[in-house]
Order: sequence, then C-alpha cells, then structure tokens
Amino acid sequence: MLPESLRRVIQLLSRLPGVGEKTAQRFALQLMTDANLAQELGGELSELQHRLRPCERCGNLAEVDGDQAVCHICRDQRRDSSLLCIVARVQDLLAIERSGAMRGRYFVLGRLLSPLDGVGPDELPIEELFLRLKQNGTQEVILATPPSVDGEATALFLARELAQQGIGASRIASGVPHGGDLEFADQITLGRAIDGRRRVDD
Amino acid sequence: MLPESLRRVIQLLSRLPGVGEKTAQRFALQLMTDANLAQELGGELSELQHRLRPCERCGNLAEVDGDQAVCHICRDQRRDSSLLCIVARVQDLLAIERSGAMRGRYFVLGRLLSPLDGVGPDELPIEELFLRLKQNGTQEVILATPPSVDGEATALFLARELAQQGIGASRIASGVPHGGDLEFADQITLGRAIDGRRRVDD
Repeated sequence: MLPESLRRVIQLLSRLPGVGEKTAQRFALQLMTDANLAQELGGELSELQHRLRPCERCGNLAEVDGDQAVCHICRDQRRDSSLLCIVARVQDLLAIERSGAMRGRYFVLGRLLSPLDGVGPDELPIEELFLRLKQNGTQEVILATPPSVDGEATALFLARELAQQGIGASRIASGVPHGGDLEFADQITLGRAIDGRRRVDD
Repeated sequence: MLPESLRRVIQLLSRLPGVGEKTAQRFALQLMTDANLAQELGGELSELQHRLRPCERCGNLAEVDGDQAVCHICRDQRRDSSLLCIVARVQDLLAIERSGAMRGRYFVLGRLLSPLDGVGPDELPIEELFLRLKQNGTQEVILATPPSVDGEATALFLARELAQQGIGASRIASGVPHGGDLEFADQITLGRAIDGRRRVDD
C-alpha cells in the first residue's frame, strides 16, 4: 500500500533501538509531512559519515580533522593518562562522562566476549588496547563493561590479560542503584550488593 | 559533550512523534554504530523528496512519475468515484485503507480548523476540494476527520459548505471501540455511543 521508497525508509528506521515496524511507519510519515524534515535529516546523516569517525586512540566518536580523528577526551591534556576506563560501547562512555566521576581516559572495546554469538577473545581489540596502555603509561585500569554475563566474562578475561602484563585492574561496583528499592531489587543484584559491601568507616 | 554534527542530528530526530532528546540520542548513537545505517538512511531520505510528493488529486503520498504525481488510489479505475472520504492526514487515509471498508476515493485536508492555533476556514483547501468533487462527480461525502474538538468543528463546517452545493455528507460513527471495555470508556465516548445507537434490526 505504501510506495516502495517509503517502505525502504521504514525498514531502515526499524533498525533503531526499540522501534518496531509500526513506529517506523509513524516516523516515516512524520518525515514526509513535517516540512523539510526528511531532506534536512537526510543531508545531515549523509554528512555524518564524513564528519564523524571512531577516535583513532580510544574508539569514542570523534570529529574528522584532515585525515585524523581524535576525540575531545583524548585531546584534553588535563585528563589523567595513568587511569584508563574500558567500556563496551560509546553509549557507556557517554553515560560515565555524564556522571563526572571519571577523570582518566577511555578505551571502547566495541564488543564483548559472547560464546553464544561466536565472539571469542581473538575478536576483542587486545592489541590496540595494549598499544594504548603503553602509549598512555597506564597504571590503573577500570573495567566498566556492563554487569551482564558477557560483560562479566569480558572483564574477567581482560583482568587476566592485564595481570600478565603487571597492570592492576578494578571492576566497577555492582549493587542496588541509588534511589532503588531493596524490595524490588532482583536476587543477583542483592547478592552482589551484599558481596560487595564496604565498611562504613572506609 | 557530543560533536556538533551529531547534536544537529539529535535535534532533528527529536521532531519525530514521541521521541524526546534522550531517545533521539539513543537513535543517533545507533545510527553511528550500526554499520552504514546513517549513510543508507541519509541517502534514502534525501532521495525521498524527489521520489514522493502529495498526490495532485487527493493529497495522499504519490510516487513522482515525470512531472506528475498521482497516487495508486487515484489511478485505480475500480474505485467508486461517486464516494469521497475526507480525512485530515495521510496517516488517517492509510488507517482507513487498512480497514478495507472504503471503496471510494479520498481527499486529504492536511489541516483542521483550529481557532486556538489561528487556523480559520480560509486555510482549508476548500477550492481544491470542490474541484475534486466536480471532477469525480461525487454524490456522497464521508467526513472522516478525527473525533476531536478540531475534527468535529471541521466536519461541521465542511458539511455546511457541502450542503450549500447540494452534496450530502455523512460523519463516521463515534462510540465504544471494538473489543473496548465499557467500564473504562470515557464519558464523552459513552455519550456518543448512546446517542449514535442503531436499531438491531437495521
């Protein structure tokens, strides 16, 4: 019932997170009826590939400058180069940045170990990571992969690799979130909150 | 914290229905990290303006063919030209088409009377509508504007205009939706369901 070109747009839009075909259709019709929205967004998105690339040092989003792409965090001289935070995705890096709790530098893995999906250790950017550690003179690594099965496996694997090189690694704390209700926390979260308890005079 | 070009994309994405800034940011990051999604979608959207235009007869989406743009409904000879269904938006036309209950042709108003937003009768495409009625030899008009304040006002206004030209108009029924629960229906809907009751031997 819909024109072919619009169906292709709908199919692409439904690759966005949480967007099914019905929502994608609503988006596509809005794009067609909201003055110039399709054209403006189309232009910006086409440009994006030329303007943004993964930062060549850490994998964060970086604006292309000549043939280089170094993100604002890697360019920031005030950052503590001895501290490196390893995350799975750019989204996670941005979330940690928003918290303001991280003064060091980052490394984006881009993927997690996942035996079920056939992602083994060879597919993690280990060489790039060690190059980065060496160039930075990193002394401490924070493993900030998500507290999921794949995230924990990846953190464990990386901690071992780092230990072999004599680099200490820590894992972000997992427990009941701030403002969270103990009554509604799941068993694993509560178990971790108990296991990860700290003395109050720390 | 985000590159300027990505912020522009986020700002455009948040014009999509039901998308706030946070969702738009999730979309933008997915567009950047899902292989080629930004580029493909950018290309398709830029093309869209050249491929699709409002149908010159009814306002539905139509694929551009040479310098013409006539939608598949207006091109369909088996449609009943004596019956015309007036809707507010292309989305509404598509919804009615999905129901399969409409065998006639359509006319998309593009807007509704809305005194609060300063949309008066002069801003409705009345001339185009009457041209369409004449060309089609329309005998019956179905007013399928939404059952909202603006939709009802527009339907009432159009019914009067049509009556002056001797064309009969009907209004789509408003009442409790199929599968709906009377207990949770609002007062206005229930009032309309009662007012619009029909004899069971109809």
